Amino acid sequence: MADSTPIRPRPATEVTEWAYEADVVVVGYGIAGVSASIEAARAGADVLVLERTSGWGGAAALAGGLIYLGGGTPLQKACGFEDSPENMKKFMMAALGPGADEEKITDYCNGSVDHYNWLVDCGVPFKETFWGEPGWEPPFDDGLVYSGGENAAPFNEIATPAPRGHVPQMSDKRTGERGGGYMLMKPLVETARELGVRAEYDMRAQTLVVDDTDRVVGIVAKRYGKEVAVRARRGVILASGGFAYNERMVEAHAPRLIGRPGAAIEEHDGRSILMAQALGADLAHMDATEVAFVCDPQLTVRGILVNGLGQRYVPEDTYSGRIGQMTLFHQENQAFLIIDEASYEAGAAATTATPFLRIRPTWVAETVAELESEAGMPSGALQSTVEMYNRHAEGGTDPLLHKKAEWVKPIGSPVAAIDLRGFTLGFPLGGLRTTIDSEVLHVSGEPIPGLFAAGRCTSGVCAGGYASGTSLGDGSFYGRRAGIRAAGSHTG
Amino acid sequence: MADSTPIRPRPATEVTEWAYEADVVVVGYGIAGVSASIEAARAGADVLVLERTSGWGGAAALAGGLIYLGGGTPLQKACGFEDSPENMKKFMMAALGPGADEEKITDYCNGSVDHYNWLVDCGVPFKETFWGEPGWEPPFDDGLVYSGGENAAPFNEIATPAPRGHVPQMSDKRTGERGGGYMLMKPLVETARELGVRAEYDMRAQTLVVDDTDRVVGIVAKRYGKEVAVRARRGVILASGGFAYNERMVEAHAPRLIGRPGAAIEEHDGRSILMAQALGADLAHMDATEVAFVCDPQLTVRGILVNGLGQRYVPEDTYSGRIGQMTLFHQENQAFLIIDEASYEAGAAATTATPFLRIRPTWVAETVAELESEAGMPSGALQSTVEMYNRHAEGGTDPLLHKKAEWVKPIGSPVAAIDLRGFTLGFPLGGLRTTIDSEVLHVSGEPIPGLFAAGRCTSGVCAGGYASGTSLGDGSFYGRRAGIRAAGSHTG
Repeated sequence: MADSTPIRPRPATEVTEWAYEADVVVVGYGIAGVSASIEAARAGADVLVLERTSGWGGAAALAGGLIYLGGGTPLQKACGFEDSPENMKKFMMAALGPGADEEKITDYCNGSVDHYNWLVDCGVPFKETFWGEPGWEPPFDDGLVYSGGENAAPFNEIATPAPRGHVPQMSDKRTGERGGGYMLMKPLVETARELGVRAEYDMRAQTLVVDDTDRVVGIVAKRYGKEVAVRARRGVILASGGFAYNERMVEAHAPRLIGRPGAAIEEHDGRSILMAQALGADLAHMDATEVAFVCDPQLTVRGILVNGLGQRYVPEDTYSGRIGQMTLFHQENQAFLIIDEASYEAGAAATTATPFLRIRPTWVAETVAELESEAGMPSGALQSTVEMYNRHAEGGTDPLLHKKAEWVKPIGSPVAAIDLRGFTLGFPLGGLRTTIDSEVLHVSGEPIPGLFAAGRCTSGVCAGGYASGTSLGDGSFYGRRAGIRAAGSHTG
Repeated sequence: MADSTPIRPRPATEVTEWAYEADVVVVGYGIAGVSASIEAARAGADVLVLERTSGWGGAAALAGGLIYLGGGTPLQKACGFEDSPENMKKFMMAALGPGADEEKITDYCNGSVDHYNWLVDCGVPFKETFWGEPGWEPPFDDGLVYSGGENAAPFNEIATPAPRGHVPQMSDKRTGERGGGYMLMKPLVETARELGVRAEYDMRAQTLVVDDTDRVVGIVAKRYGKEVAVRARRGVILASGGFAYNERMVEAHAPRLIGRPGAAIEEHDGRSILMAQALGADLAHMDATEVAFVCDPQLTVRGILVNGLGQRYVPEDTYSGRIGQMTLFHQENQAFLIIDEASYEAGAAATTATPFLRIRPTWVAETVAELESEAGMPSGALQSTVEMYNRHAEGGTDPLLHKKAEWVKPIGSPVAAIDLRGFTLGFPLGGLRTTIDSEVLHVSGEPIPGLFAAGRCTSGVCAGGYASGTSLGDGSFYGRRAGIRAAGSHTG
C-alpha cells in the first residue's frame, strides 16, 4: 500500500486530538453509506460521513441503478407481476449459491416490499412500466426488468418468474444526462441532508481506533496527507466498497479477475476490509464474483453460444451476468457466438440500448464445417453441436439447455462466429462477514463492539451467483440496518 | 465453537503461570510440525511440540504418503526421467492456478532436489522403481508415479512430462500393514526425537499469547478441559492442518465441499487459522480445494466421461484430482462414465490397487440411443458425443480433448453408463498467507513477529489446481523453513 499509516488498530489512548466527533461515523458516501446515514439520523443520532473523494455518489451514482427487490412490490403489481417473499427466496437461493447466506436472503426477501416503499418515501422515482426485451439495462426510463435469469432455464422451473430489477427513473437517458444510479443517490443524499447528516470530503479512512476493551470508538483518516482522528460515540459504519482495485487482494482471493475489473471504481481498494481484518474480523466468499459478458443480449439470444470445444453450455436467453460467470469460471473464458446472417441482422436492428456491444462477426462462412475450420475449433465439434441444435430447433425445442421456444430457430447460412474469448469483466462480491443487523463478526463468532458494515465491503446476499441489482440492493438494505443498529449502540 | 476459551489473543500480562517453556513451540505433530521441529532443533533451539491427539502423525500418517518433488531428484534420475526446476515450475504454474503463488513455486522447485535428499537423510525410504499405470496411488511399493496429469493434455504440451509423485516405501502394503504416509512420518519423528524435540499430547491449542508490542510469545492450550499456558521464547509455529471439519468455514469459503470432506482428519477444525486471524493475519485462496474423483482410473481411462449434458469435458487419461475438480466445480458435480463391455472387463482385470473403486455399471444397453434414454440424458446429446468420438477414434485420435492414442478406441456394444454424479470428495487448500520463510503475514503486508506457519493451515503452492503430493510437499518444505526461521527469531 502506498499509504504509510499503519493499518493496525490505533489505541484511543494514542489519539491526542479528535478533529471531529459524532454519534455515528459512516465511512463512504455511496449507496450503503447514505442509507445508513438516513436511518441513523432518523433514530436520533448525530451522523458524520467521511468520504474519500470530493463528492457523494460512490460506485452507485455511476451505475445503472438497478435495485433487486420483490416479494410483491407496488411496482411489480402495477406492471402485472405476481411475486411473494417465498418465491423470491426460492429464486435467490437457487441462483446466488452455492453458499448463499440463507438467513440474509430470507430476511432480505421478507423486507423487500418495505424497502421499496422506503426508497419511494425518500424520493426515489420509479416509472410503472416493464421492459421485457433481452438487454443489459433498459434503454429508456422503464422501471422494471428481469435482471437475474428468473424467466430462463433452469430458474423458470424452480420459482415463478418475476422481474425484480427496479430501476430509478432517469431524467432523460437518451440525452445521456444522468443514469439510474444518480437518480437513486440524489434523493437519498438530499434526504440525508435534510435530516442533518454532515459530510466531510477528501477523507481517506486509514485505521480504526479502539478502546482498551477493543470496542471501536473512532477512526483515523487522512486528508491531504495529514492524519485526522474522528471520534464515534456510538459506532463506526464501514461502507466504502469492495476490493476490485486492490491487486494483492484480487490475486489472493479472486484471481480470475486479474486484469479485468469492471463496474467498480478505483476507490474500491479494500481498505475497509483490511482495517476490520486487523481487528480480527471474519470474511466470507472472497472468491465470489460478478461477471459481465460483453456482448449484446439481442445478438446472443438469437444465436448459440459455444465454448472452446464447440459445445453449448448455457441457455442463451438467460441473464448476461450468468453467461459471464459460466464463461469465465467454467469455460476458461472461451466463448463464441454462432449466428446466421438473418438472425444477426434481426438482432442488430432490435438493438436500441447497447450499440457498443454490437460486435461484428469474426468469421463468416457458407457452411458450419468451413466456419469451424476457420475459427480453429476441434474438427467436427461445432458441426455436431449445430446439427443437434438444428434438428430439435425444427420442432421449436432445445432439450439440451431449454432456451425458450420463442428464441429457438435452426441456424441457417451464411453463418458467422463472433469471437468472444476474454470478453468478460467483473468485480468481487466477497468481504466482511456481517449479521443481518450489519454487525461485523469477529472470527470468534461474536460481533465486534462498535463496528458495522454494509455494501460491497461485506459479503451480502450473493455467493456463487449474481443478479443485477443485488449490490445496490443489499447495500441499501443492510446500510439501513447498520444505521439503525449503530444509532442504538452505546458504550459500556 | 463448542470450546469456550476466547480466541482473541491473550496478553502475556494475563498469564499467571507458564506450564511449559521452549525456544520454539510447534502446534501439531503432522508433516509440517515434524519438519519444523527437526530444523529448529538442528538450528540449536529447544523445541516443544503440542499435539491435540494422543500421538504423532496427523493427517500425513494416514495418507498415501506422496510427496511432490522434482527438478531432477536422484529417484527421478534412477527411474530414467529428465526434469529441471524450470520444467517443474512450468508445469506447476500451469496446473495449480489461476492465482498460484509464483514466488513460492519458484522457490519450491529450486529447493526440491535438496528437499528430497533431506528426507532421505532423515531416513525416509524410497524404492527406485516407477509405476506407470493409471491409478490412484501405486498398489505396490514403487517409489515414483505421475500424480498431477503431467503426461496428459494439456500439460504434456506445456512442459516435458516427468513423474513427481515420490512415495515412501511401504513395509508391506499388500498385507495392509502401513501406508506411505506412515513410512514418511515415522523416520521423521524418530529424527526429531534423536534431536531432543519434546512433545506434549492431548493439548488443544486455543489462543495465541502476545506481548505489548503484539509479538507472539506463547500459546494457551487446553488439556482435559484445563487451560495450560506455554511460553515460546523465539516463536510459535502453527502446523495443525486445515479447516475441512469446520462447517462454518467451509460454508463461508468453500461451499461446494459442504457434506463431502475427504482426505483430512476431524482435527482439521481451522483453529490455527482463526487464532492467527484474530491477530490480523491475512488469508489466501480460501476457496481452493483438492477434489478426489471416486472412480477407478483403470476404468475411467478406457471410457469417455460426460457431464449431465452428455458432453465430454476432460481427457480421461489425466490425474483423477483434475477430473474431480473439473467435475465438482465446472460440471455441477455431474459425471457419467460411458464404457463398452470389453473395455470394462479389461479395466477391471487391470485393477490391482483399488478394487473398492471398481463401480458396477448403472445402465447397460445395446445401443447408445437406448443408453442415453435410460440414463435420462437430453435426447441426442450422448449419441452425438459418441458418434464424434468414435469417428476420430477409428484413426486413433481425440481432437477434442487429446486423450493419448494408447487409450483411444471406438466405443462398441454392449455399452454401459456408470452414474458418477456426486462421486467427489475434497479438502480445502486455503489458509494463512505466509512468506517463503513461513512467516505469517499481517493484513498490513508485514510479518507478525514471532508467528510462523506451514502445512494445510496455510495457502501453499496450490490455488485453483492440485497435484497429489503437494500437501505433504509444501507442508514439509515450508515446515522446515518455519523451523529454521523461528529458531533464528529473537525477541527485541
